[in-house]
Amino acid sequence: MRQYSLCIIGFGNVGIALAKILKDKRDFLIEKHNVEFNITGVADSRGGVVSRDPLEIDLLLDTIKNKGSVGYYPDMGKMKQTALEVIQACQSDILIELTPTNIKDGEPALTYIRNGLLQKMHVVTANKGPVVFAYSEILELARKQNKLFKFGGATAGALPTVNVGYYDLAGSEITAIEGIVNGTTNYILTRMAEDKLSFEEGLAEAQRLGIAETDPSLDIEGYDTANKMIILAISLMGAKIRLEDIARQGITKITPAHIAQAKEEGIVYKLLGRVYKEEGEVKVRVGPEAISLDHPLSRINKTQKAVTFHTDLMGSLTISGGDSGRIPAAAAVLRDLVNLSREDKGELCRGF
Amino acid sequence: MRQYSLCIIGFGNVGIALAKILKDKRDFLIEKHNVEFNITGVADSRGGVVSRDPLEIDLLLDTIKNKGSVGYYPDMGKMKQTALEVIQACQSDILIELTPTNIKDGEPALTYIRNGLLQKMHVVTANKGPVVFAYSEILELARKQNKLFKFGGATAGALPTVNVGYYDLAGSEITAIEGIVNGTTNYILTRMAEDKLSFEEGLAEAQRLGIAETDPSLDIEGYDTANKMIILAISLMGAKIRLEDIARQGITKITPAHIAQAKEEGIVYKLLGRVYKEEGEVKVRVGPEAISLDHPLSRINKTQKAVTFHTDLMGSLTISGGDSGRIPAAAAVLRDLVNLSREDKGELCRGF
Repeated sequence: MRQYSLCIIGFGNVGIALAKILKDKRDFLIEKHNVEFNITGVADSRGGVVSRDPLEIDLLLDTIKNKGSVGYYPDMGKMKQTALEVIQACQSDILIELTPTNIKDGEPALTYIRNGLLQKMHVVTANKGPVVFAYSEILELARKQNKLFKFGGATAGALPTVNVGYYDLAGSEITAIEGIVNGTTNYILTRMAEDKLSFEEGLAEAQRLGIAETDPSLDIEGYDTANKMIILAISLMGAKIRLEDIARQGITKITPAHIAQAKEEGIVYKLLGRVYKEEGEVKVRVGPEAISLDHPLSRINKTQKAVTFHTDLMGSLTISGGDSGRIPAAAAVLRDLVNLSREDKGELCRGF
Repeated sequence: MRQYSLCIIGFGNVGIALAKILKDKRDFLIEKHNVEFNITGVADSRGGVVSRDPLEIDLLLDTIKNKGSVGYYPDMGKMKQTALEVIQACQSDILIELTPTNIKDGEPALTYIRNGLLQKMHVVTANKGPVVFAYSEILELARKQNKLFKFGGATAGALPTVNVGYYDLAGSEITAIEGIVNGTTNYILTRMAEDKLSFEEGLAEAQRLGIAETDPSLDIEGYDTANKMIILAISLMGAKIRLEDIARQGITKITPAHIAQAKEEGIVYKLLGRVYKEEGEVKVRVGPEAISLDHPLSRINKTQKAVTFHTDLMGSLTISGGDSGRIPAAAAVLRDLVNLSREDKGELCRGF
């Protein structure tokens, strides 16, 4: 059986959900996946805790809930201990990087990941930043250190996207990708079509329901979609591309008149991210497009997300669904952990 | 770089397509997947060829095309050499079992696979039989021999189904599965709805187009769907189940009146395979069901196939698409080969 010790950097909603899942599913993971994960280091924004032996998850959860920081973990916690100090003190097998995404430069996650790899840790992250800004560099360092770098949860949470490209399309060549990967904008466009709402009305409703942020610009201006498609382009189609290079348009200019006209023509507006090849170069573009009701993505509504992959040998494949929220996001990290344990050298997985 | 020698048993449409892909994509596989596959043994229904060194794929293809059997391969081919003799003479790393599915007892594929494993070969197959009839036994032998057994292409060709359950849902628990996994019956039902055809008219049209066989009973009576769902139930949900145990109904009793009534009610008839839990036991049932237009499988039409997985942590995920035919089927085998090379002990894969 494989045993892995984990160092978790970032202990907010997703980190906490992950810890709880690891505790609740301990027997399942041993029984079904022949693997055991133990937490030996945690850093949150105010402190950290590092241990030689597995930390007690109940105690971790209790501490963060009642004291506000794992720096208060009995005996071993240290207030003001930084993430970098935790990483350097931790002797764990895997670094799990869960700090909030910084779309300006991917820091401090990038620094954490470099440090983790230099210390011979595998790395799993749900953070877009490092992948968008430094994928090639991280991959090269990972190969040099003979470690794995997984980021399946960085594109659309529970919905597997990078994973589909990596495992389910292995051996075939991906020639193009189309995706509805932002739940907020898809919700707004769906509601505009359903009840003839204006964009402003749709946005207000989404904000009321917590589906859109107070400052919704990352979603409605297409930045979130752009970053997710960039990750797919870079990791699955070998693109060398940055956010500023791509044509990006959000949904703020869509009007009820547009939507009504589309309905009459049997087409529907969706905020699509596209990865495509043009003159030998892999490009990304994001914008509202009117697609036919035959298109597999036309029926993806409300906060649902989906991605269609076009390949040379298998035809086109569409993956859709996957819940949003902290538990699905944590489940996506767990997915990477299990697959990492399968690919790590030294022991065959069980079965398939 | 990983190098694998292959022994291919069954050299019909899919075997030939696989050999051609391995030749055409040689550089791609080295460049992208850091793996090289060489063929060192082949058996067809009339003869075989075994070699110490890689066989020339062009010569293999030429021989089968112009002479009708690889037994005519220059110097090394042997007419009347049996598959078992080829396996036993071959020192290859991987056995690829591509003989036609026998839904009565899974033979002779089962014997080939046992022999391959006993000779310390990994096994990849697209054949349903062995998985339906002897999954546990094969898996146990594979583990004992420390080898991998992959059968992703056995359920729906290019459409990844076992793969989705295995890789994309890793760590989560699959609580139920629903699938439209037979293209023939889906085509007939779609056409009945589109043009108010009777079942007989729909079937006749499908046969004219080569979408249904001269003897279509395996498809229209739901046997094909049943076997595919059994494979998913066994491999992904731990079911102990046989074809005779399940409730199975085909589409032969569906009438234009049924379809018209459904249309009025905003529902649509599909031949659904279901895997579900009842009183702690995993069960399978197959039958035509009227599903609502909200259901992700309701828009899967003509020969398209799709599977919806319900999970404990990630919500529901649907995978759809994938072409039918010899090349997509061969691509599914290649997919297993690449993933096998990633999980085989001894070397980390590149990147993700």
